[in-house]
Amino acid sequence: MSKRIGIIGCGAIGSLYAAHLAHAGFEVWVFTRRPEHARALDESGLRVSGTHAFHARLRATSSAAEFPECEFGIVATKALQTEQAFAPVARKFDRGAVLSAQNGLGSEEILAKLTRGYIIRGTAFMSGTRHSDTHVQYELDTPTWMGPFEPTNTPFALVQELAALITAGGLKAIALEDARPAQWSKLLFNAAVNGVSALTGLPHSPHFADRSGADSLGNLVFDLLEEGKRVAAALGVRLHEDPWEMNKLGAQSNHPPSMLNDVRRRQPTEVDFLAGAVTREAERAGIPAPLHTAVYRLIKGKEASWAAEGAD
Amino acid sequence: MSKRIGIIGCGAIGSLYAAHLAHAGFEVWVFTRRPEHARALDESGLRVSGTHAFHARLRATSSAAEFPECEFGIVATKALQTEQAFAPVARKFDRGAVLSAQNGLGSEEILAKLTRGYIIRGTAFMSGTRHSDTHVQYELDTPTWMGPFEPTNTPFALVQELAALITAGGLKAIALEDARPAQWSKLLFNAAVNGVSALTGLPHSPHFADRSGADSLGNLVFDLLEEGKRVAAALGVRLHEDPWEMNKLGAQSNHPPSMLNDVRRRQPTEVDFLAGAVTREAERAGIPAPLHTAVYRLIKGKEASWAAEGAD
Repeated sequence: MSKRIGIIGCGAIGSLYAAHLAHAGFEVWVFTRRPEHARALDESGLRVSGTHAFHARLRATSSAAEFPECEFGIVATKALQTEQAFAPVARKFDRGAVLSAQNGLGSEEILAKLTRGYIIRGTAFMSGTRHSDTHVQYELDTPTWMGPFEPTNTPFALVQELAALITAGGLKAIALEDARPAQWSKLLFNAAVNGVSALTGLPHSPHFADRSGADSLGNLVFDLLEEGKRVAAALGVRLHEDPWEMNKLGAQSNHPPSMLNDVRRRQPTEVDFLAGAVTREAERAGIPAPLHTAVYRLIKGKEASWAAEGAD
Repeated sequence: MSKRIGIIGCGAIGSLYAAHLAHAGFEVWVFTRRPEHARALDESGLRVSGTHAFHARLRATSSAAEFPECEFGIVATKALQTEQAFAPVARKFDRGAVLSAQNGLGSEEILAKLTRGYIIRGTAFMSGTRHSDTHVQYELDTPTWMGPFEPTNTPFALVQELAALITAGGLKAIALEDARPAQWSKLLFNAAVNGVSALTGLPHSPHFADRSGADSLGNLVFDLLEEGKRVAAALGVRLHEDPWEMNKLGAQSNHPPSMLNDVRRRQPTEVDFLAGAVTREAERAGIPAPLHTAVYRLIKGKEASWAAEGAD
């Protein structure tokens, strides 16, 4: 029997997983909030352009009742939407394993509360642009790092199996006994870069790597990353990659991080899963993280300023 | 002979000094950048409404050559404009004394480089709204605290004399042997409140005093003020007033701090004289000030984001 894989959330990343897995011949079901989105996907499938180019047919629904039991799941919503998006179909994965391919820290815990299935810790490094409900452009062809989520005692063989399915679909995936070093590298990078970008309004640009003056922004990014590394070390988490090197590379891109887009649209950000998560982990480790705490509170204040405007 | 007093900068605060001193019968000369502003003042004088209500005639010019020698000066420009605004007429105060009634720390040093006259350290707590070039509304009837600027060995008698002139004009002024406790109270208050407001977009509102949750903004303001107090203590500066109490009071006002207005207009802020000044003073004292340094770098980054947009 062909493997049945459920995709929750069909933005750029969810669309890329769904299309590639369907293209490889697996039975892919997309669960999405908007009925017209589900209808369009179910009728027209997904077109991929860019780094890969093909068209794939798949099933899609916005009805939890229609959504079948699945062996594997991939949750690719914004971290903020995890609970609301996954809850209606969570029990359809009770005998399966679900990968969180979301930003930051804390989504796995939310998934684990909703399903009896195994949870897989994931960090997606690939990128894409969603042009419409049925067209996604594939950009950075970089791997998904994945490993067992410790509290559900996920068997490593299941992680390897899902990594193999993703690889069969043409994407890159690496199964790891311990996925935290990769997740934390991206967490620290994202917490610093998204936070500084959201507060300054700057895209990820050379300012972020500029350490020439005492008032240079790169010094703040550097200090944030050093603080984050101390939190990781205090929790015994090695880092897969130095987030400062990731920052130096990204700073050449002039790419607007997702939290800058949230700020521009005045919609809630993922800060609870980024700087907020580092703040909570620091507290758990019993060490100070004043810079992440400051960024966290400032962005919470920024979100409150939109509510205040809305109330006018 | 009547005292001749020169006012540099004629925004809300400069207009209030000029009008009240002229109303008391002193010879007041305003030096202002815009010729049409000078012409309007010279022809129509200044109308004061609000807490006080009267009309006063005075002299005004935008020509340094026309500006006479003065016994006293009051500089009431934005801190950023001090050098540019004062330089053309600085030597007209070589035999006088000049009060800085500006925000933050560092303006006195700039004035002292430009004139051979004495410099007076000032902190204005009054407030007003400038309705036009010739109409200012007086609001908070609170004193100007003033004292000798140490490097110019300003005689205390001169400070007392200028305070008496201001008082004769109907405003409040208090001469102090040491004006730093008042200046630092306002500096720490302003550095924290302006910085947090500029970065969050929130006016000075109850959020700033809310310490109910770990992510509450009031905790950041509190931590900033505690850090600032440690810098003051390390430099041997007592505080005149607890800036946290000032913040709790101000947080009920929903008043947009000047730096929030600068951010909304996308114009350079006074951050070098506020969080930047606390950062420099901390370095001078040899103690860390990570939160002020972070606020300083974030606002510098925000200013850079406007330049980036302008270059598009």
